[in-house]
Amino acid sequence: MESLAKNVVWHQAAVTRELRQELNGHRAVNLWFTGLSGSGKSTIAHAVEEHLFRAGCRTFVFDGDNVRHGLCSDLDFSESGRSENIRRIAEMVKLFLEVGVIALTAFISPLREDRQRVRELLGEDFIEIYCQCSLDVCEGRDVKGLYRKAREGKIQNYTGISSPYEEPVHPDLVLDTGTSPLETCIAKVLSLLKTRQVI
Amino acid sequence: MESLAKNVVWHQAAVTRELRQELNGHRAVNLWFTGLSGSGKSTIAHAVEEHLFRAGCRTFVFDGDNVRHGLCSDLDFSESGRSENIRRIAEMVKLFLEVGVIALTAFISPLREDRQRVRELLGEDFIEIYCQCSLDVCEGRDVKGLYRKAREGKIQNYTGISSPYEEPVHPDLVLDTGTSPLETCIAKVLSLLKTRQVI
Repeated sequence: MESLAKNVVWHQAAVTRELRQELNGHRAVNLWFTGLSGSGKSTIAHAVEEHLFRAGCRTFVFDGDNVRHGLCSDLDFSESGRSENIRRIAEMVKLFLEVGVIALTAFISPLREDRQRVRELLGEDFIEIYCQCSLDVCEGRDVKGLYRKAREGKIQNYTGISSPYEEPVHPDLVLDTGTSPLETCIAKVLSLLKTRQVI
Repeated sequence: MESLAKNVVWHQAAVTRELRQELNGHRAVNLWFTGLSGSGKSTIAHAVEEHLFRAGCRTFVFDGDNVRHGLCSDLDFSESGRSENIRRIAEMVKLFLEVGVIALTAFISPLREDRQRVRELLGEDFIEIYCQCSLDVCEGRDVKGLYRKAREGKIQNYTGISSPYEEPVHPDLVLDTGTSPLETCIAKVLSLLKTRQVI
């Protein structure tokens, strides 16, 4: 892919990420929530965002919903479609980090290889948070009624049913989203951000 | 494309664009600089950004350089590649507006139809700024040595040489970047932002 951009010359910005972080009063990182559909990724991400925003931080939550309708509306849910989806999200997050924003991403992102590519792109700014919740519990919640549709064969490539989910091997944080209260999960994320000196 | 996302349910964010704009103390808009290569789009965008940033605004400059290496590294410079490039940029800008950032975009964006699609997506947040500069002057500058390569046939689909540039019909602002000093151009952009009550 590099060759396509060979006639592109880098332009040095005068306003840097460091200056923006200084203005914001916090570091920019990516909190990458991964887990099955229904494991609570979006709920936790939005709740953490609200806490951070109230503390004056610049934040944004990306989820399958707001990205799939826009930037990635041309992609399907096949393995290659999902990989390209994750690649674009990672590249977009990289630019949000440049803006000094704490980017919270809530995507199933079922494949280790795809998440590993994000880690390679973002380096130490990538914080992988595994929302651990059994398929039984997720399917029991079935907030969107999609597990039922998947069981009925009305949706193809549904993670956990007809498509694999690969658990993180060394996530930065594991949240037991099957049994822990929401407040406990939020507290753990905020605590990690303090330990890592993000906020 | 809608059908691909039919099983995606919108998630209501608790932190809204309005709250973020309030925190930032300014509105979020997109300053879309269009014009030939060498017409000064990036230079002006970065200079305007620096002024805005010094005034405490949240800003970011997107240009062919930082986007072509990342988000759009899989696209070529054919007409369809350029259109998809512009589509993705517009969708990304839409998310930056949600974050409350003044997004400055510096892309040749040669086709009216592509820019019209951005306007339709972003509505009144889209401010089209035409960097008007003759091909002669742009080619004379040839900062990156690309016009020469294009004349020699070493680069295909080069705007102004082997690919068309369609001037905006009703841009929000025209900058005479062929003869006006940089400071004049910056002042005009800042003045427009004040008139539109962005800052």
